[in-house]
Amino acid sequence: MKILLHGARGVMGRNVIDVAKNTEDCEINCGVDAHAEGADLGFPVYEDIFKVKEDFDVIVDFSVREAVDRLLDFAVEKKKALVLCTTGLSEEQEKKIVEAAKSIPILQSGNMSLGVNILQELVRLAAAKLYKEGFDIEIVEAHHRRKKDAPSGTALMLEKAVEEGVGEALNKVYDREERHQARERQEIGMLSLRGGTIPGVHEIIFAGEDEIVKLEHTAYSRKIFAKGAITAAFFLLQKAPGKYDMTAVLR
Amino acid sequence: MKILLHGARGVMGRNVIDVAKNTEDCEINCGVDAHAEGADLGFPVYEDIFKVKEDFDVIVDFSVREAVDRLLDFAVEKKKALVLCTTGLSEEQEKKIVEAAKSIPILQSGNMSLGVNILQELVRLAAAKLYKEGFDIEIVEAHHRRKKDAPSGTALMLEKAVEEGVGEALNKVYDREERHQARERQEIGMLSLRGGTIPGVHEIIFAGEDEIVKLEHTAYSRKIFAKGAITAAFFLLQKAPGKYDMTAVLR
Amino acid sequence: MKILLHGARGVMGRNVIDVAKNTEDCEINCGVDAHAEGADLGFPVYEDIFKVKEDFDVIVDFSVREAVDRLLDFAVEKKKALVLCTTGLSEEQEKKIVEAAKSIPILQSGNMSLGVNILQELVRLAAAKLYKEGFDIEIVEAHHRRKKDAPSGTALMLEKAVEEGVGEALNKVYDREERHQARERQEIGMLSLRGGTIPGVHEIIFAGEDEIVKLEHTAYSRKIFAKGAITAAFFLLQKAPGKYDMTAVLR
Amino acid sequence: MKILLHGARGVMGRNVIDVAKNTEDCEINCGVDAHAEGADLGFPVYEDIFKVKEDFDVIVDFSVREAVDRLLDFAVEKKKALVLCTTGLSEEQEKKIVEAAKSIPILQSGNMSLGVNILQELVRLAAAKLYKEGFDIEIVEAHHRRKKDAPSGTALMLEKAVEEGVGEALNKVYDREERHQARERQEIGMLSLRGGTIPGVHEIIFAGEDEIVKLEHTAYSRKIFAKGAITAAFFLLQKAPGKYDMTAVLR
Repeated sequence: MKILLHGARGVMGRNVIDVAKNTEDCEINCGVDAHAEGADLGFPVYEDIFKVKEDFDVIVDFSVREAVDRLLDFAVEKKKALVLCTTGLSEEQEKKIVEAAKSIPILQSGNMSLGVNILQELVRLAAAKLYKEGFDIEIVEAHHRRKKDAPSGTALMLEKAVEEGVGEALNKVYDREERHQARERQEIGMLSLRGGTIPGVHEIIFAGEDEIVKLEHTAYSRKIFAKGAITAAFFLLQKAPGKYDMTAVLR
Repeated sequence: MKILLHGARGVMGRNVIDVAKNTEDCEINCGVDAHAEGADLGFPVYEDIFKVKEDFDVIVDFSVREAVDRLLDFAVEKKKALVLCTTGLSEEQEKKIVEAAKSIPILQSGNMSLGVNILQELVRLAAAKLYKEGFDIEIVEAHHRRKKDAPSGTALMLEKAVEEGVGEALNKVYDREERHQARERQEIGMLSLRGGTIPGVHEIIFAGEDEIVKLEHTAYSRKIFAKGAITAAFFLLQKAPGKYDMTAVLR
Repeated sequence: MKILLHGARGVMGRNVIDVAKNTEDCEINCGVDAHAEGADLGFPVYEDIFKVKEDFDVIVDFSVREAVDRLLDFAVEKKKALVLCTTGLSEEQEKKIVEAAKSIPILQSGNMSLGVNILQELVRLAAAKLYKEGFDIEIVEAHHRRKKDAPSGTALMLEKAVEEGVGEALNKVYDREERHQARERQEIGMLSLRGGTIPGVHEIIFAGEDEIVKLEHTAYSRKIFAKGAITAAFFLLQKAPGKYDMTAVLR
Repeated sequence: MKILLHGARGVMGRNVIDVAKNTEDCEINCGVDAHAEGADLGFPVYEDIFKVKEDFDVIVDFSVREAVDRLLDFAVEKKKALVLCTTGLSEEQEKKIVEAAKSIPILQSGNMSLGVNILQELVRLAAAKLYKEGFDIEIVEAHHRRKKDAPSGTALMLEKAVEEGVGEALNKVYDREERHQARERQEIGMLSLRGGTIPGVHEIIFAGEDEIVKLEHTAYSRKIFAKGAITAAFFLLQKAPGKYDMTAVLR
């Protein structure tokens, strides 16, 4: 499998390179990055994705939302499978992904780790059982100091799982400092902690009468996300056009 | 509903009295306790259960394992429903319960709270998914300084849920200080913390490659166990002989 | 010691009544509450504090910020010691307290528990050591669903301890959803979780390069705050006018 | 600075090599390992430490206790400074270290990270304040599945800090399953969790009446221990014979 690595010089790019080296039948043969100049990664890196000359099988993307539109245009034009791991996309971009998935296979996930994707299922079940018993639900996520989007894509993905379990839409609250009011039943607090080099912690808290149930995932390194992305790339190789998620890969 | 409260002067007994007072159609009209003398609880308390004169509908028990054999004899003789909340019973006692349940309805649970009983289901699912992906599973429980049995009945109940999920028996390890060896695949560490007045914390840890999933329940007061026991008593009123658990009550 | 209980019918009022009953040489002989009508607490309850007829030694207050101005006027006029536990006050009110403390002894604390007041000292020390080594500092607090102010008075008190340790002012951030930027060095995230009946959890997170130090306090019941308030009331009995905090009581 | 790396082919050895590469004025020019054959680490690796031919300034050790006696003999004979990071040593070995430190500078620590060494100070202070107020103290540590000794050297180091704070010896309890008794005042539970690849988590729990204070350290990678060891090596270069710990390095 030959990979075009999109976002080759970012922190996650480096992790994908490391993991690819240790994976059989897997090679990164070209990359794209806004800061391409002077890159020395063992494969050519282009500033402009449309300048890529190499042939490849699949694109693995860990970039920034500003780069995603051109990425989609390129993938569709070249008819290449795409593992899309950038989070914090706009609604318009999400629509564009749905459109692109009509002609190419796209796997999109807020989080590529095994644990989080299983957690998602547990969260759905817990929310279904506990919300109707009067439990309140809140989500806390923690990431490193350089992360710009908040809440994390994973927190949003888990919030969606909560809503699926609950069976109704909830009102996401990001800031309680200005509110001066008691919590409402349909609120769901979304709290974002930032600091140090934290790879990612997600807690889903179910608070009832004198008892709390908490589900928690801690990532100890970003390597697990890189591994998940490469597993997903192998998965996409033989797939028909469409939008896939990690649940399909794990099955 | 008239209740015989078995273990009337213990900490949990007091909690059951409080909750019963605030529950409609529910009255404790007699009690049993090894320390019956001088009790002033608003109902007669007997040292010997076979001396109880009042008529009642159901027995709620939060006592000690030494008292459970006579309790079972009495319940069977009187043909009364029994909510049995004492933990740390011997294997023989467990067999005696199965026998008794042929003639009376018995609800037995390691933990009467809503949260723990839903947690049990989550643990089963998580264990089924994560163990086969190579995650190791461990259980940590924390209780107040006066608790004598370890691990807690709840921890044992959750460990059973783990084994059901995993689909095979695991080897419970209580002490690693003497072992001087790496962890084996089929181990499950059972750690018991004791201190202060902690009503009960249970954590199930799934530790994989660079990631951890944790499920946790915290009880903030013992009132939730008393509430669960009274809900269970109402549930048993119309039931045929047999052994029931809280899952049945919650459905 | 005779106590005027201000906020007699609130949740904390009820806890103070319980604790006072079990404390020697301590009696609540009058109360004030906006909802005084129909109160049956074993002592007279007034809607208007200036209508109180009983004589007493000290005021214990767990009310709402709207009631604090009249409380201060009354305490100063009657020359009575005041244990002031209401949080979320305005800057003007804080100034009024300083003014009042020139003529009466006032003990004010964001949190009356032993544990939190010792935690405060640990936080100061940890912040002094870790911030200069490049650790980022964040605070997460969790309370029951009815709490209206956020962050909690305790979280603000701990944040002040962080600043004292660090030796400079930090920039409190309550909401990261709108920011779209990396964390700045002098930020301190202040996150407020709300749900169920949580009496109060406070976490101070120090996040560095690949390691985290966390200090945490969990209150299991509100009784500890009531106990602290009554200990503080005894402490104030013989004190000269001035502003005191729990640190003085604990010494 | 030229380093002899003792335990060169272990997990920690690999981490030291990585960190040394990215540290100025620092080179590993020889190594020792029981499995020396076929090593390709960029420097010669010897099975027997007495066969080392290279000249070096300091020894950095992350090995196993079986190798520590010869290591000490060698360091003393060659008059070389030693950073000793192997834990789980016998009492005899500890005495041998004290003896050796009369002729060479030795830095020994149960944990080389900045955070744990500052935590130690916090633990001492917290124990001094909270134990006499009736709080019970317990320690929980978690490490990867391959770790053989339990409790961890770090947990033992923190337990010592607890005793220093408390001002008296405590009774370490590793297993409560067999005890069937209430917790005693002078107990300190030492719980060891094992699973996955956890680099190291340490929690010190202070459990009082209805409240808990918890101090916690989480290592996200083993690189922090390697960094600490190299910082310690630089520190030892100019030091007189004697036994040092990380507190001295951090000052």
